[in-house]
Amino acid sequence: MTDIRFDVLTIGNAIVDVIARVDDSFITQERLVKGSMNLIDEARAEQLYSVMGPAREISGGSAGNTAAGVASFGGKAAYFGKVKKDQLGDIYRHDMRAQGVQFESVAASDGPATARSFILVTPDSERTMNTYLGACVNLTTADIDVDTVRASRVTYMEGYLYDRPEAKDAFRRASDIARAANRLTSVTLSDSFCVERHRDDFMHLIRSRIDIVFANETEIKSLYQTQNFNGAMEAIRRDCAVAVLTRSEKGSVIVRGDETVEVPAHPVSRVIDVTGAGDLYAAGFLFGFTREMPLRRCAELGGLAAAEVISHVGARPEISLKDHAAAHKLL
Amino acid sequence: MTDIRFDVLTIGNAIVDVIARVDDSFITQERLVKGSMNLIDEARAEQLYSVMGPAREISGGSAGNTAAGVASFGGKAAYFGKVKKDQLGDIYRHDMRAQGVQFESVAASDGPATARSFILVTPDSERTMNTYLGACVNLTTADIDVDTVRASRVTYMEGYLYDRPEAKDAFRRASDIARAANRLTSVTLSDSFCVERHRDDFMHLIRSRIDIVFANETEIKSLYQTQNFNGAMEAIRRDCAVAVLTRSEKGSVIVRGDETVEVPAHPVSRVIDVTGAGDLYAAGFLFGFTREMPLRRCAELGGLAAAEVISHVGARPEISLKDHAAAHKLL
Repeated sequence: MTDIRFDVLTIGNAIVDVIARVDDSFITQERLVKGSMNLIDEARAEQLYSVMGPAREISGGSAGNTAAGVASFGGKAAYFGKVKKDQLGDIYRHDMRAQGVQFESVAASDGPATARSFILVTPDSERTMNTYLGACVNLTTADIDVDTVRASRVTYMEGYLYDRPEAKDAFRRASDIARAANRLTSVTLSDSFCVERHRDDFMHLIRSRIDIVFANETEIKSLYQTQNFNGAMEAIRRDCAVAVLTRSEKGSVIVRGDETVEVPAHPVSRVIDVTGAGDLYAAGFLFGFTREMPLRRCAELGGLAAAEVISHVGARPEISLKDHAAAHKLL
Repeated sequence: MTDIRFDVLTIGNAIVDVIARVDDSFITQERLVKGSMNLIDEARAEQLYSVMGPAREISGGSAGNTAAGVASFGGKAAYFGKVKKDQLGDIYRHDMRAQGVQFESVAASDGPATARSFILVTPDSERTMNTYLGACVNLTTADIDVDTVRASRVTYMEGYLYDRPEAKDAFRRASDIARAANRLTSVTLSDSFCVERHRDDFMHLIRSRIDIVFANETEIKSLYQTQNFNGAMEAIRRDCAVAVLTRSEKGSVIVRGDETVEVPAHPVSRVIDVTGAGDLYAAGFLFGFTREMPLRRCAELGGLAAAEVISHVGARPEISLKDHAAAHKLL
């Protein structure tokens, strides 16, 4: 039996965010759907970058943001993700480790460059993501370090990994190891279009090998192909031990067996950029959950972290979430 | 006679800022002087980065920030600076061009990487800069495009260039070309320690070949080795056609012959990061000056741009300064 060394291990696409403010007309001109996440190839990445305004670079990636959030709460976090050995890869690794996250995945020495996501933030604070996966295509089962999975209370994975067969295999391998070691597994559905692409796989995954599912309202509705939130909630209640459903400004609902816990959203004085809201909610929830806090408190920690990250540009916390939670008497 | 194509050409060290928030204890531990700009070598850059927290990357460089500011006001700006052909160099070039600045300097194909400055922002919003010049060491007279200098109303250079002999030669070559073409020349003293390192050279430069000098209070006092601001002001009045003296929250003073124009600082609701205040002040001033606005208006535009840039992290404007100035009835 491996000793516990990590509260949360997260696995995902290691992506540097390239963030620019744009007008709504830019979204229209580039034929984008506001709020969506689009996978783009290298040619489109170059074209889009050439017409985008000045940007800033901040490490991101859904599961990477979650690991950073867990560490910011004072939890022990580890991360698996693939960068190339290049400047953006070095920046990504630095930002992870500087946040206190263990990140030992070997950088690719050749092949495509470190992934980047061109994140266009409109005046309404909505973000439209355009992700060039680059080096992430090299994430395979070889990157799943058995010992780290066994040493983690929960292994959390992003649904985006299902967009590539090798990453999907890595995902399945990690969940096999976690379950064999009697650890928890968790997944976020990531994006409603991601759910559309992999609905049957996700359904099978959740029913067979996942303990905690994170989904927002559109994702869970898409999973069960219904417009009725309560219907989807009752369906996921039957399919999974714990389901954590986030509803933006309407807060979140947790279902576990017969239990239903509804928690209002944490107040935000001014929303600047919604990128990372779900990732940080998951960080707060999992931090509380792995410390065996009541579900309500887990949800409150999630809401607190989500509120912090949407109050500034970038999907990683800018303050110590541990101190922030203490100031709000949640820790 | 070359036609005018640019309002302002700026020349400086092309640097990507790597910005992190730190506590005062970090400044002490690393034996830094708060508010200073330190030149560091590659080994120190690696050491410092390894102990810094998570950061964000935003294009910077003093004269680069000024060019970006001029363009944001709607002025025509060009920039000479040296990056390497690497990811950070590509980012730097993108950010310049995306802001509308002409940036044609050829990237170095070998030698050190694109320059970066580790900017540590303390809770009092003060910044401490640690600059690894990297590829900037390759900026030479060969990078001074004669036609662009001749086509610019004013050529503005950062005093930091004097820290390297080749860049100093480039600086002198640019000013020779500008003066021969009957264009204006301008310099910022950059930093009081930079003034200490090059006091005699700066003195000679200002008296012989510069039309407009920018300096903050400590820089101008250092230049004339006095603790008396008025004494320094009267001295620069005799040595230079136009002197623009900035005094942080006390506003700015412009002296031109017998004229003295004092302008209060633009109000700022909350100072977040003072990096770039002087650079953006120069942008606003030069934009007004090249459009032959009264000195008071030039100073007001400078103050407006400085106030915008210190209200957020990063040394480049986040909004259209043209629109911002119009909203304040300054344009």
